[in-house]
Amino acid sequence: MRKEIRFSGSGGQGVILASVILGTAAALYENKHAVQSQSYGPEARGGASKADVIISDEPVKYPKARNIDFMLCLTQKAADKYLPDLKEGGLVLIDSDYVDVPETDKYKVVKLPISSTTYDKQGKLIALNIVSLSAFVEVTKLVSEDSLEKAVLQAAPKGTEDFNMEAVKIGRELAKSLK
Amino acid sequence: MRKEIRFSGSGGQGVILASVILGTAAALYENKHAVQSQSYGPEARGGASKADVIISDEPVKYPKARNIDFMLCLTQKAADKYLPDLKEGGLVLIDSDYVDVPETDKYKVVKLPISSTTYDKQGKLIALNIVSLSAFVEVTKLVSEDSLEKAVLQAAPKGTEDFNMEAVKIGRELAKSLK
Repeated sequence: MRKEIRFSGSGGQGVILASVILGTAAALYENKHAVQSQSYGPEARGGASKADVIISDEPVKYPKARNIDFMLCLTQKAADKYLPDLKEGGLVLIDSDYVDVPETDKYKVVKLPISSTTYDKQGKLIALNIVSLSAFVEVTKLVSEDSLEKAVLQAAPKGTEDFNMEAVKIGRELAKSLK
Repeated sequence: MRKEIRFSGSGGQGVILASVILGTAAALYENKHAVQSQSYGPEARGGASKADVIISDEPVKYPKARNIDFMLCLTQKAADKYLPDLKEGGLVLIDSDYVDVPETDKYKVVKLPISSTTYDKQGKLIALNIVSLSAFVEVTKLVSEDSLEKAVLQAAPKGTEDFNMEAVKIGRELAKSLK
């Protein structure tokens, strides 16, 4: 089992932290191996931001993501840039408040109004990355709810634990509302 | 030019964020290519934490660090675990408040009292990773002072800019005091 995951959005939306949390959830709480990475070139300036995670039962020998199984896109620019890297039969979760993706047979598109829901429930978008991550985990089942919560708590600065747990619940319920 | 850098310490010391900032400083403000990554296995639980950056003039083809040029060690456990990966002729910066490393001809050891200096100047250790990063950059000259400051500002949450710029200055002056 080797799964390649890419989180994408704009700089400042916290996609790196979200992918670090996913990697630690898999490695620390589910006995998997994980590599989390971001590569930047000069073209990264002002553009779309991405962060990759590879989760595997075995130590990860080749740490570069090339054939993405699961993707998250929080901005249209990120979707336009990275969606071609999603493999056939893959799945992409998009924030339908900001992203639209044409229907296709190549991969599955899951649309959730992540930003507006986060804003409605929390009055700000600080934890958008955690809401997105939690919805993503609910859709993909890459790690358990329990492992995700432990990893979010571990990453949360002191005093923000409740706020971040609330964000986890918002994302989970949003994804469950699909079914 | 390809340089491999490893930041190591304990979980919660912010070595991942420090290495993300170094990678963005090189890629966004110095026209280099950079890959930042962390790999975790089940053995990561409770142990030493590491984060790698590769900086290159060319796109980074092989993103795994194997032959570290420059290392930062904030804890003894991290030094014991990762120092064997430092290449001959490399350089390690250690927090001499917590880490000791035997003298050797194999690589250069730079010792700075990072924790105690940070605590003396700021009354807390929240920005220890930024102080360490700044001292590291002053010692290694991997990126310019200006690029570092821009990348730190970009990563700093709103309202913490001054505090983080202060941390940059503390680290830089500490490293300069060596000379």
